[in-house]
Amino acid sequence: MATTQKIRYSDCDPQGIVFNGNYARYWDDALTDWVEEAGFGGEALGGIGTDVVTARLEMDFKEPARLGETLETTIEVERFGNTSMTTRIETRRSSDGATVVSGKAIYVFVHADSFRPSPVPEEIRDALGPAVDRD
Amino acid sequence: MATTQKIRYSDCDPQGIVFNGNYARYWDDALTDWVEEAGFGGEALGGIGTDVVTARLEMDFKEPARLGETLETTIEVERFGNTSMTTRIETRRSSDGATVVSGKAIYVFVHADSFRPSPVPEEIRDALGPAVDRD
Amino acid sequence: MATTQKIRYSDCDPQGIVFNGNYARYWDDALTDWVEEAGFGGEALGGIGTDVVTARLEMDFKEPARLGETLETTIEVERFGNTSMTTRIETRRSSDGATVVSGKAIYVFVHADSFRPSPVPEEIRDALGPAVDRD
Amino acid sequence: MATTQKIRYSDCDPQGIVFNGNYARYWDDALTDWVEEAGFGGEALGGIGTDVVTARLEMDFKEPARLGETLETTIEVERFGNTSMTTRIETRRSSDGATVVSGKAIYVFVHADSFRPSPVPEEIRDALGPAVDRD
Repeated sequence: MATTQKIRYSDCDPQGIVFNGNYARYWDDALTDWVEEAGFGGEALGGIGTDVVTARLEMDFKEPARLGETLETTIEVERFGNTSMTTRIETRRSSDGATVVSGKAIYVFVHADSFRPSPVPEEIRDALGPAVDRD
Repeated sequence: MATTQKIRYSDCDPQGIVFNGNYARYWDDALTDWVEEAGFGGEALGGIGTDVVTARLEMDFKEPARLGETLETTIEVERFGNTSMTTRIETRRSSDGATVVSGKAIYVFVHADSFRPSPVPEEIRDALGPAVDRD
Repeated sequence: MATTQKIRYSDCDPQGIVFNGNYARYWDDALTDWVEEAGFGGEALGGIGTDVVTARLEMDFKEPARLGETLETTIEVERFGNTSMTTRIETRRSSDGATVVSGKAIYVFVHADSFRPSPVPEEIRDALGPAVDRD
Repeated sequence: MATTQKIRYSDCDPQGIVFNGNYARYWDDALTDWVEEAGFGGEALGGIGTDVVTARLEMDFKEPARLGETLETTIEVERFGNTSMTTRIETRRSSDGATVVSGKAIYVFVHADSFRPSPVPEEIRDALGPAVDRD
């Protein structure tokens, strides 16, 4: 599943390309869509008493993206820890599939109330990364 | 009292000027600083059970502002309604005082819990617009 | 023609609603889509040597919009001046059609190089507001 | 040298904390200030025919930061490559010095016109990392 993002005027900086910080936003949007697609919609997993926080981002900026282009961002699970999920994320240009930004994000599951780390819910593991080995 | 804002790279668009939507952010920052200066700091007036929402913005974009410039935003009360405060806001370029954006904002005071309009607190009237006639 | 915008996590503030400055971004996106739809795509009318700047925004915030909702923004021309176009803009909640933000924007056409005001191109008048009286 | 950043209302998300993508903005601001402090002000090094692009970001989110807090971001050079500069960046809470986000950024110097990589200017090496070994 991919989230399609039309590059917007206000996403671009005086160099005429998407400002680097906006990719973190695109990735967050892609995470939301992917989690919703898996059936955990609404306010970020609230239904199962869990929330997600971003613990680490690694972003390699391979090529600039410009106004008028459309991007597609995909996420896949690389591994699950006890309370964390490590993902590989790729943002590609729709027109030619060229990688614009690639990298990883580590998300930690937390109790919706206390924001303390909590084990990755079974239903999340099953839905997002059924084939991924557990540690 | 003025809020000084250094124009940031990510505030500017491919025309090399501050994107219009960012002035709404500058004005919100100026409101916060002005209210804090008046002694109502922390999480937006929470101490007196009140919050503020923006009901209307009028913004006239007089001149573009560019990277490397610094802006100063000032707010003053034009009038108080029962639950609202109408302000005049001016954003000027620090170097020469030229007006970049000017306009008005109408803020409505609301109960911190219900978000329903509530009368402008007396202490706010006294602190922000002591010389302003009431309706 | 309407631009559909899914409310994103980073669009929302600690009150859990879309931050007011983000509507200026939604409106700018809607302007772009509308102009593209009319056949003036790419980098903002560059093909006919013209660019557009925002001269005035009037925004009435009628209702808050929350995460999980989708918005639709429509623009229509109210009048053309010599170098300007006054529009009425409406952002509605997709689920029930309720108006979230409504108002006006005045755009000024400028020479792509000098950024000085230039007459509204005939093809723009014909495409965006064929039924609108000229001043 | 540190860049001080007051956390703004629109920087925070519905969790009431700074949205992760905004730290990339804070880091970009800190880079600008640091480069200016070293004497390369104005439009990003334009004076010496050079521009800078971000090639990689690594960000570890250690603690959330909240409205009302102030952050300080510091950058130091870890190493210079032929056309790149690897930096360590730390964003701390002003009140108690706690690390909020730490990580690395790799910047690549490019020709201002072609955006092709160009050797790190000698004057930049001398100004930003005089004690750093060259590869």
